[in-house]
Amino acid sequence: MNLLLLEPADFIAADRVLLRGRRLKHMREVHRVEAGECLRVGLLGAQMGSGRVLRLDEQEAELAVAFDQPPPAKLPITLLLALPRPKMLRRVLQTVAAMGVPRLVLLNSVRVEKSFWQTPFLEPAAIREQLILGLEQARDTVLPTVTLEKRFKPFVEDRLPALAAGTRGLVGHPGDYPPCPRALSEPATLAIGPEGGWIPYEVEKLGEAGLQPVQLGERILRVETAVSALLARLY
Amino acid sequence: MNLLLLEPADFIAADRVLLRGRRLKHMREVHRVEAGECLRVGLLGAQMGSGRVLRLDEQEAELAVAFDQPPPAKLPITLLLALPRPKMLRRVLQTVAAMGVPRLVLLNSVRVEKSFWQTPFLEPAAIREQLILGLEQARDTVLPTVTLEKRFKPFVEDRLPALAAGTRGLVGHPGDYPPCPRALSEPATLAIGPEGGWIPYEVEKLGEAGLQPVQLGERILRVETAVSALLARLY
Repeated sequence: MNLLLLEPADFIAADRVLLRGRRLKHMREVHRVEAGECLRVGLLGAQMGSGRVLRLDEQEAELAVAFDQPPPAKLPITLLLALPRPKMLRRVLQTVAAMGVPRLVLLNSVRVEKSFWQTPFLEPAAIREQLILGLEQARDTVLPTVTLEKRFKPFVEDRLPALAAGTRGLVGHPGDYPPCPRALSEPATLAIGPEGGWIPYEVEKLGEAGLQPVQLGERILRVETAVSALLARLY
Repeated sequence: MNLLLLEPADFIAADRVLLRGRRLKHMREVHRVEAGECLRVGLLGAQMGSGRVLRLDEQEAELAVAFDQPPPAKLPITLLLALPRPKMLRRVLQTVAAMGVPRLVLLNSVRVEKSFWQTPFLEPAAIREQLILGLEQARDTVLPTVTLEKRFKPFVEDRLPALAAGTRGLVGHPGDYPPCPRALSEPATLAIGPEGGWIPYEVEKLGEAGLQPVQLGERILRVETAVSALLARLY
């Protein structure tokens, strides 16, 4: 937690917050914060600044906060991800938020196991929890939007073309394709497949929607590693 | 497991292997392999090829194997990593092996908690286990070498200059530094700090050994994410 992320419900006055629970525990046990210290704070969806700890005990912490700087810029990208297995999903959500992806679409694919769609980690509150951890890690305040698309074809045929219009459309896919481009100056729409990859029909449909296959070498990477590697290469 | 990684002890004849334990379980339960199928195989430290399943039951699997292609090239890099916390260490070892880093040095830093050096995950067998998982993921056969350097100063003063000689020396460090370069054509020596970063003295000492600070934007990334992002950007 490199940023103490505040929400409207934390405020007891315009410049005062009262914290309990996870954030208090983290302040006490990991950062070993004491009264008088200053911490970086951010207001969810808004500015960042600093907070001075006025008092802190086992029950709660009270901070005087002031906001004076904008959150870091997001990447100009929409990321489509074949729904990963639940354990991986949680880490990927953190990575996506930490790296500054503003829009994430979790998409079905033939190689996504049906049971993955049943996980409680897809509940809105569970998704939000992981995104918040990513924002706290990277020092950002703005939640990415996450959309679930349980049906591949209607999404790719009906909604993806508009989403990808005016952007560089890319599908990460192993094989005899051009290497993933570097240091783009334009926005992108990037699709990353499931373990085992997209099937040829899916690559074809993504291509019809404007997304062209690119490869990242012969090595097969875990989804989480592929996400950070591709984003770091593109921007 | 995208590659069935074989060791000399698995062989019962020049072209026959017998598998039990983890790899058998994975073949049966995850890949649901049946007799007659062909799988990608690799010989640890040597070539890759294919294996045909001759028989397979709850006890063991017998495969006829042939090797005909080299493993993928490694990255021309030596990675120095401030020792991460044990849970992160395991994943980082997998990432390092999967991405093709040939040499890893786990290094002390003021911000590395002393207890991290006590973890059983630093036992050679435990390190090897995670590296193997990374090789199986990425389809590689060659184990990276991993060196533990519990004392920062003697390593950086006495051994690092020779290690970094003739390479582009870089320290990933947040701050007002040049951005991390892209698409290097020369080999590199890259140092990535602990949670909380290197202290100024450490950055200075790394600089004396030929490693210059570069930054990857304002976002603070987890070690594992920083490793894959920096490697993908450099090569």
